[in-house]
Amino acid sequence: MSAEPTNPQSSPATNLLREEIPLPAAVLYRSRLEHNLQWMQSFADQRGVKLAPHGKTTMTPALFRMQLAAGAWGMTLANPQQARVAAEAGATRILMANQLVGRANMQLASDLLRDYPQLDFYCLVDSTNSIHQLGEFFGSTKQPLKVLIEVGVPGGRTGCRNTDEVNALCEELKHRPQLQLAGVETYEGLIHGERAEARVTEHLKLVRDICLSLLERGEFATETVILSGAGSAWYDLVAEVFTDHKTPRILPVLRPGCYLTHDRGIYEEAQAAVMARLNGHCCPSGDLQSSLEVWVYVQSLPEPGMAILNFGKRDAAYDAGLPRPELHFRPGRDTAPRTITEDWRLTNIMDQHAMLQIPRNADLQVSDMLALSTSHPCLTFDKWRQVLIIDDDYNLLETAETCF
Amino acid sequence: MSAEPTNPQSSPATNLLREEIPLPAAVLYRSRLEHNLQWMQSFADQRGVKLAPHGKTTMTPALFRMQLAAGAWGMTLANPQQARVAAEAGATRILMANQLVGRANMQLASDLLRDYPQLDFYCLVDSTNSIHQLGEFFGSTKQPLKVLIEVGVPGGRTGCRNTDEVNALCEELKHRPQLQLAGVETYEGLIHGERAEARVTEHLKLVRDICLSLLERGEFATETVILSGAGSAWYDLVAEVFTDHKTPRILPVLRPGCYLTHDRGIYEEAQAAVMARLNGHCCPSGDLQSSLEVWVYVQSLPEPGMAILNFGKRDAAYDAGLPRPELHFRPGRDTAPRTITEDWRLTNIMDQHAMLQIPRNADLQVSDMLALSTSHPCLTFDKWRQVLIIDDDYNLLETAETCF
Repeated sequence: MSAEPTNPQSSPATNLLREEIPLPAAVLYRSRLEHNLQWMQSFADQRGVKLAPHGKTTMTPALFRMQLAAGAWGMTLANPQQARVAAEAGATRILMANQLVGRANMQLASDLLRDYPQLDFYCLVDSTNSIHQLGEFFGSTKQPLKVLIEVGVPGGRTGCRNTDEVNALCEELKHRPQLQLAGVETYEGLIHGERAEARVTEHLKLVRDICLSLLERGEFATETVILSGAGSAWYDLVAEVFTDHKTPRILPVLRPGCYLTHDRGIYEEAQAAVMARLNGHCCPSGDLQSSLEVWVYVQSLPEPGMAILNFGKRDAAYDAGLPRPELHFRPGRDTAPRTITEDWRLTNIMDQHAMLQIPRNADLQVSDMLALSTSHPCLTFDKWRQVLIIDDDYNLLETAETCF
Repeated sequence: MSAEPTNPQSSPATNLLREEIPLPAAVLYRSRLEHNLQWMQSFADQRGVKLAPHGKTTMTPALFRMQLAAGAWGMTLANPQQARVAAEAGATRILMANQLVGRANMQLASDLLRDYPQLDFYCLVDSTNSIHQLGEFFGSTKQPLKVLIEVGVPGGRTGCRNTDEVNALCEELKHRPQLQLAGVETYEGLIHGERAEARVTEHLKLVRDICLSLLERGEFATETVILSGAGSAWYDLVAEVFTDHKTPRILPVLRPGCYLTHDRGIYEEAQAAVMARLNGHCCPSGDLQSSLEVWVYVQSLPEPGMAILNFGKRDAAYDAGLPRPELHFRPGRDTAPRTITEDWRLTNIMDQHAMLQIPRNADLQVSDMLALSTSHPCLTFDKWRQVLIIDDDYNLLETAETCF
């Protein structure tokens, strides 16, 4: 839903704690965003890999611009509408990490290439049928289209399952001069469960070796060959395996999406595993910081030990663990938010409400403010038309539009 | 995410089956919307109750206007931002079915009352603390505010839990002349599980009797007294119990939200129970029809029996059962969509993808189009900036903006 803050240019600054912003509101701490940007860019620089952050997480051009300014090589997006948003935000390299299917969708990509003739745009292929369709369409528009072959995970999602399939695509591409094979892509984040680390490494080596073998066979149409993987959970392994070769034409590109805002749920957990694997070796100092919070009011205290908050599934992700209360602030009493103890926890979430369990003697009143962290930032962002970027004193710095 | 259809005013009409609309897209069948509007309005008219449809479901002004034109008494909304959208769409009576908490939120309501001086606006109260805060705020703005006492469900959500609490609110309201007690509200949809029907009826009788007793004691400040309940699951019982008295000052108001689009999940199930209870007695002919579909492309067929679709949690509700494939259309081959059999079913959904299980010999190709129905329309609507209203020939009639 929309927040309607007053004009941030007005003086003095609009302040969250002075109740100058309707709640619920989604807020981002600028200092933490900047820390995370720096952290991941340092990691990439140290490892000799490029970053094409997955923009689908936030779909917020102001954040895309921060990522590009911090040194990102390009942006990753999920579909042609999203790709246009990134191009408008200044991305000059766009990796659409999906197959481009359907005539109206191809038309959107074609329009994008027409409107941004300098744009370095890539999309994925994983079937001869799709190559045929892309070849027909972009043959008719006479626009060259760079494609990456996707190698998938068995039982997972899109992508070729074996080298025979990859070779069949290479054959088909030979008949489609409009399509330029420019690299190989995978998404290892689909591997879960037992021996996940070993299986991810094994899969990444397979993908790298496919890329090396295509390179040796002269299958690529471009001088630079993209070798891309990595969500926010296994980027350290991707960086390791995809730089473990002696082939300067290969450009390893990581596509993490959630590092920028980070979270207090599944990505906090994944990052703890990354840090344990890195074990202080060749990584930037500090760690990623959770920077996204949803601020809400206590709407009702209908029974002892139960508070109803004025936000819900309409305002925050709930698919990977419920939001977690972090801060408590009582307007008119407190000068700064207090950290919430572990015994305050969300037990249920509905469309526009959430149920908070608290100790029966908890000091909580109707219209107290709470800040909640979330798990899985993507599905919080898509609930908001604006996210509010604040400083450490809770002053509103920028109302950033999302473009879903 | 946004669809970007070409201008619907162009001739000939933009057509979904001619692949003139990028997919995924959320579409609504105009004929079914009109049927549902008519059905529910007839029900309300026959039962002598008023409709204030819950606008939070769709947050689509074009649909609000249809609901008002079909005879709705007013609109229900969840918060002051939503209330403004409904006022802008022409609602003259707005029931904000929540407590209004927090200074910035009260300011939004105050601005709304200032901008729409003729607006008949109601919000809920369930605590003396909240009455105190509302009294202070609206005392200072010198705006009268109509409030309904909410009676809640034990273990449920907001609302008073017993008559003592209700009486305490009435006492507190006597000291707050700015606040005008205008009725009693409940949301019975929180009652689930064993003996649900009997417990819902019992709860509704309690709420009605509280209202009658307050009326007898002269607690209401308004001539007309609102007695409101009903989501989309128990509206028949609410209509029955809330009209079962001989007090002309009481206006029974139902607030169903999901009847307009209906669904093929939890609301289809709830409606089947309504129809069974009505048993053909005093109800309109026919039944509600599922009118919301998400249209998508087959993006990949990576393994036998597995299709990956180009939509996900970013495009459709998934909290009350996964979307259900309904129609299959192959551009260039088919002239009309074919109904999908039960053995095609969604098995998983991710942010931007969904996994469809199909028979190994299923006739399905990359870039085939599928239409999926959903369960729980609210959480599909909030994923879209526009929904596309189509006719029965899949021509685009209107691109309707959502206002979340």
